Amino acid sequence: MLQSNMAVNPQGHFVFAGFDTVELAKKYGTGLYLIDEDRIRGNCRQYVHTMRSCMPAGSVPLFASKALSFKQMLRIINEEGMCADVVSAGELYTALAADFPAERIYFHGVNKTDEDIAYALDNKVGYFIIDCYEELYALDRMAGERGIRQKALLRLTPGIDPHTFAAVNTGKVDCQFGVPIETGQAREFVSAALKAENIDLVGYHCHIGSQIFDAQPFCDAIDIMLGFISMIRDEFGYTASVLDLGGGFGVRYVESDPHVDIPACIRRVAAYLEKACIQCGLPVPVVLMEPGRSIVADAGVTLYTVGSVKEINGYRSYVTVDGGMSDNPRYALYGSEYTAIIANKADQPADYLCSIAGRCCESGALIQENIMLQQPERGDTLAVMVTGAYNYSMASNYNRLRRLPIVMLHEGKDYLAVRRETFADLLSCDL
Amino acid sequence: MLQSNMAVNPQGHFVFAGFDTVELAKKYGTGLYLIDEDRIRGNCRQYVHTMRSCMPAGSVPLFASKALSFKQMLRIINEEGMCADVVSAGELYTALAADFPAERIYFHGVNKTDEDIAYALDNKVGYFIIDCYEELYALDRMAGERGIRQKALLRLTPGIDPHTFAAVNTGKVDCQFGVPIETGQAREFVSAALKAENIDLVGYHCHIGSQIFDAQPFCDAIDIMLGFISMIRDEFGYTASVLDLGGGFGVRYVESDPHVDIPACIRRVAAYLEKACIQCGLPVPVVLMEPGRSIVADAGVTLYTVGSVKEINGYRSYVTVDGGMSDNPRYALYGSEYTAIIANKADQPADYLCSIAGRCCESGALIQENIMLQQPERGDTLAVMVTGAYNYSMASNYNRLRRLPIVMLHEGKDYLAVRRETFADLLSCDL
Repeated sequence: MLQSNMAVNPQGHFVFAGFDTVELAKKYGTGLYLIDEDRIRGNCRQYVHTMRSCMPAGSVPLFASKALSFKQMLRIINEEGMCADVVSAGELYTALAADFPAERIYFHGVNKTDEDIAYALDNKVGYFIIDCYEELYALDRMAGERGIRQKALLRLTPGIDPHTFAAVNTGKVDCQFGVPIETGQAREFVSAALKAENIDLVGYHCHIGSQIFDAQPFCDAIDIMLGFISMIRDEFGYTASVLDLGGGFGVRYVESDPHVDIPACIRRVAAYLEKACIQCGLPVPVVLMEPGRSIVADAGVTLYTVGSVKEINGYRSYVTVDGGMSDNPRYALYGSEYTAIIANKADQPADYLCSIAGRCCESGALIQENIMLQQPERGDTLAVMVTGAYNYSMASNYNRLRRLPIVMLHEGKDYLAVRRETFADLLSCDL
Repeated sequence: MLQSNMAVNPQGHFVFAGFDTVELAKKYGTGLYLIDEDRIRGNCRQYVHTMRSCMPAGSVPLFASKALSFKQMLRIINEEGMCADVVSAGELYTALAADFPAERIYFHGVNKTDEDIAYALDNKVGYFIIDCYEELYALDRMAGERGIRQKALLRLTPGIDPHTFAAVNTGKVDCQFGVPIETGQAREFVSAALKAENIDLVGYHCHIGSQIFDAQPFCDAIDIMLGFISMIRDEFGYTASVLDLGGGFGVRYVESDPHVDIPACIRRVAAYLEKACIQCGLPVPVVLMEPGRSIVADAGVTLYTVGSVKEINGYRSYVTVDGGMSDNPRYALYGSEYTAIIANKADQPADYLCSIAGRCCESGALIQENIMLQQPERGDTLAVMVTGAYNYSMASNYNRLRRLPIVMLHEGKDYLAVRRETFADLLSCDL
């Protein structure tokens, strides 16, 4: 099995977080997102405890809520002592609706409108992460209008390419996010921010990419960021007290993906940072990290029901399920790999080569190609693993398919956190 | 201008369907989908009138509602005398909610669940388009249980590659849809369908792909389908009376795309079919076509507000807008080309080379790369053209962005057909 929260029971059924998934499929219907709450809490604790143990006081992980945002999720994150990173007013609204303390929320986003800024200021969000000059000036003006001195970080691009997939690689210089260090533009940006009367600049943010399997790219980012902090200190007399290293630790989607020892990586990053600060003569900054995928991905499994098995003589076989790119667009978007199993035949050999097609009316609407499954047939339950991140959050009603419910699994109890959409929901905005 | 329903007014503003888009952006806010209802009605009439004039009685276009499905849209389609193609129970629900006559609805879809089949039967849907054996057997059984003899077509794959983009090419043999002719499997499929007591087989469906700019691929499909009809007639004594040629005519997204003269193409297809039927000694079948994109794409424009303009020295410039892959994922999915203009500077030269980034927190969340615009700045209105198809229908709440409203433009009047989502809507399924 791919993970420790997966097993096969004596009935030959796939077990996730201690639950017989075939029974859950019967109870709630399919397609269905399952979320192992205990796994999420464990993943949170790895970050919280390790950062607390080896980094300056105040160092904390922010949950990148874009990976999976719904009310109960934010409640759990709050209970585990994490802060929240939100990238839109809608994510902020969701966090506030879950009673997440506003002062522990960091407001990200490449294009905050005046409305977004007003909404966040009026709700006393803790920190803005300022992406561009337009935001800097709008925030300074609007904070001033409200008599607020708003705490903020500046998003900078360190120009690191951690050799991850292009579409999810945001640390290189040529991207829409932040302001680049390499071109000298970050220096000017800091200079402008220090002049903004209503902004209290606490530090810098960088994000180098996704699916990173070791600490080294973060150490590379530290070199660049500390060099920049030193330069700004020397030139402007301002020393950043907070360094946000962004997210990016990878997860195992398939057996061939490496395992990341996140506590060990964090300790390595902490040790590297401390040593590098000594070399630069800088105080060690408070560190923020922004895990999203590595908090929720391996806590998720999606259950589908097989609808047909189509063997095209001389070509290949397709297995269709009652879901697809509407609930998981990641294969269509990125060709992302996944591991899957016929949940009611989990003890049988996976000797059937096929591609898994969703029910959307589009050739590209595949969940996976050329994967080995147990012999499938209509009515079987198909489980796709490691779907906790960027599945629910990217879901659409394409083909007017209803979005799936989320069932949480916690200490042997299952409960609904997000209900299945109804047909009436599809028309809720129609006039 | 790309199309006849676009212009520039004396204020230098981009005009769509006779409306100053800058005024519409002020009135409704952005992001905003605009739909030119008169254009849709004109596009419908091209199909309806031409098919009526040159094809056997009963020949009719079905609107592929997956391209754009909401209540008012289905009302318009009905008023224009088209039938509807639905690919899910949700699309069927939408059509029924718009009082679309059930007998004029064709139920498509690669994986219909027993629930879907029951829902369609109980609502007396006109035709099923049966995709696979599992559906055939389930439909036969469930129709029998209800004392219904259900009219149906079989979806067959003719094995034609019209050299269109792989992800939207569904006519080739190796795909999840239908049953292939080339392998002999379609012959067996027909044999099984003819034995199904509760199914009234009226004919065959094929779909060869998307963005097809001339009649030739449809003529190629006719050759294959008529050959198959003849073979089945000779072997089983059954002659299909309906031939559904699917959809696929292309639209002009950018100036370099060719213009398709749809009435001329339909007449060419009709003439080719008639001649080929004479050669095969077959009666000319009733023809169905399934336009989606060519009905709605050029009736749509999306309006955004520019948030920032970021010039990365030595690299490129990014313009960010208040929308993105959440309301138009087609560039992220397929690298689809679009034409865009700064609506409030439409009379100025488009001499600014940039990439348009959405507000989603993801590098790939671009709307277009390396496009020429008028000099942009925060607060400008950006119009992206030809967004009527597969934008609203593929929209998500990724990053918890709220989905956009649809404003219809009809005979000089603007009215809201789908309202903007609220923050509360984002949590409507949260428990």
